[in-house]
Amino acid sequence: MATAISNSNSYAIGIDIGGTNTVFGIVDSRGNISYRGAISTKKSETIEKYIDDLYNAIQPLIEDAGGKEYIKGIGIGAPNGNYYTGSIEYAPNLTWKGIIPLSKMITSKFGLPSALTNDANAAAVGEMMYGAAKGMKDFIMITLGTGVGSGIVANGQLILGHDGFAGELGHTIIVPNGRLHPGTGAHGSLEIYCSATGVHLSALEILEKNPKEKSLMRDYTAENLDSKAVYDCAMKGDKLAKEVYQFTGEILGKALANFVMFSSPAAIILFGGLCKAGDLILKPTKEAMEANVLPIFRNKVKLIFSELKESDAAILGASALVWDL
Amino acid sequence: MATAISNSNSYAIGIDIGGTNTVFGIVDSRGNISYRGAISTKKSETIEKYIDDLYNAIQPLIEDAGGKEYIKGIGIGAPNGNYYTGSIEYAPNLTWKGIIPLSKMITSKFGLPSALTNDANAAAVGEMMYGAAKGMKDFIMITLGTGVGSGIVANGQLILGHDGFAGELGHTIIVPNGRLHPGTGAHGSLEIYCSATGVHLSALEILEKNPKEKSLMRDYTAENLDSKAVYDCAMKGDKLAKEVYQFTGEILGKALANFVMFSSPAAIILFGGLCKAGDLILKPTKEAMEANVLPIFRNKVKLIFSELKESDAAILGASALVWDL
Repeated sequence: MATAISNSNSYAIGIDIGGTNTVFGIVDSRGNISYRGAISTKKSETIEKYIDDLYNAIQPLIEDAGGKEYIKGIGIGAPNGNYYTGSIEYAPNLTWKGIIPLSKMITSKFGLPSALTNDANAAAVGEMMYGAAKGMKDFIMITLGTGVGSGIVANGQLILGHDGFAGELGHTIIVPNGRLHPGTGAHGSLEIYCSATGVHLSALEILEKNPKEKSLMRDYTAENLDSKAVYDCAMKGDKLAKEVYQFTGEILGKALANFVMFSSPAAIILFGGLCKAGDLILKPTKEAMEANVLPIFRNKVKLIFSELKESDAAILGASALVWDL
Repeated sequence: MATAISNSNSYAIGIDIGGTNTVFGIVDSRGNISYRGAISTKKSETIEKYIDDLYNAIQPLIEDAGGKEYIKGIGIGAPNGNYYTGSIEYAPNLTWKGIIPLSKMITSKFGLPSALTNDANAAAVGEMMYGAAKGMKDFIMITLGTGVGSGIVANGQLILGHDGFAGELGHTIIVPNGRLHPGTGAHGSLEIYCSATGVHLSALEILEKNPKEKSLMRDYTAENLDSKAVYDCAMKGDKLAKEVYQFTGEILGKALANFVMFSSPAAIILFGGLCKAGDLILKPTKEAMEANVLPIFRNKVKLIFSELKESDAAILGASALVWDL
């Protein structure tokens, strides 16, 4: 049994459910992740099997932390996770369809109270408690990964909306009659341009529009030309690859300008895979954002990258739900 | 002296400053406007002269209400009014330029505490306390008048943003590279399509695009073809006039769809002159809104007109600021 722990109930478990992997950790109230692990999300065909797998992976960590009496509860971030209902509802990127009463199932299996929210909201809470948004009462977190997610904080609180579904900024329409999003049927949503998939599609489009222009991107098969490959080419000075990030940043910046005029945040925090492109994405985004806001907002909103490691932000944010339980 | 008042400090003064007129009232805590009046906003060239005029108009009402000891304070709604600073900051539609420390000046003149917010926020608070949003914790108020304003409530609180300037939804870009807004230099903002000015411009555009089509709107000079004239023509069955409102509603609905995916409100409340068009504007707006939201939001957000008389909502909302003083 661990001896370093002075108070009972001094740990929270944070679980971040992604489309591919689930990561989790046991976190103290200062935001230190003491024990951590991961399982595959995809491997478990049924939700019951998944919860068994999760239990089997986390139980040893709970023992390492001194046993269940030291754990205050479990916080979970998941795509389409709804804080009010504790359910995952119609998540397009998960194997389990329909409405999954996840919080209830977790509590029943672990014998611990639990709370659920969507993954981007969890990351926003993590950032507010332990990261770049520490001390901020108004900020927006944008996750640029396989999809585009968002967590919005105003007056120091997450905006959940009347039904728990607020913050779907990835699905706002930025380019009317633009590119089709096959998952939603919408045309021109932020996600279909500014996700990893979006960068991939923009790269293919820009190559096709410039058939005579040489590009290192032509060394890749269409399938392999992912956002990382585009980044590598751009860093080698490839003109068209740079154009892909310029184009992506312009659309992101226009979207952010609209978000700024909605909630006037002190900062917008970018998070997720696309942030690895650094200034390649940040510079055009900032320029387009500033060009599209009213003068009263100009040069007032910080546009910054998350300070937390990607997996940590979500574990920390999910665990933070527990302190409110 | 009034004898019906049982408690001291039982009234609040609400002042709504518009570009043309200023209306005010003395309001009890149940939202009854007991005494009311109005002065011209434009007539006073200097802010000092305006405050004198306002004092001279309101002082008799204060006497009617029993004297200053029965007044808890003064709440003011004004274009570009900032709750945090108590100042009107760079209001394009007011005669007084730059930063006007209005709350401080009012308090000094009247000897009463005061609070300031922007006019659309005041209307939203009025609607929440006494109107269609009673009991709602998440809603958006859109004012469709000379301009397009907004007040956003989430978690039962006004979203003010880190600097007090949140809720400038009229300036979000809905039609990229669209119509120029001469006041802001932006292209395609909501306000330049869905304000009274926007309807006027759309009517002229639609007439010009259909030179061979007959229309009652051609009986008006370009200058006189205001939103009321377009409405009158549409009610007489004029096809092109109906098209103007269809077009306006489609753009408004697309904008509202984006706002819904931001804060997932229980309702969007429309307010101001354009609401007089009733179903002519409401129907296409609702259709476009529903068509552009993700399925999880569909048929969940009420789209309704304000239940308060136009001048009352702002007086009530402004006065409501006082109860928090």
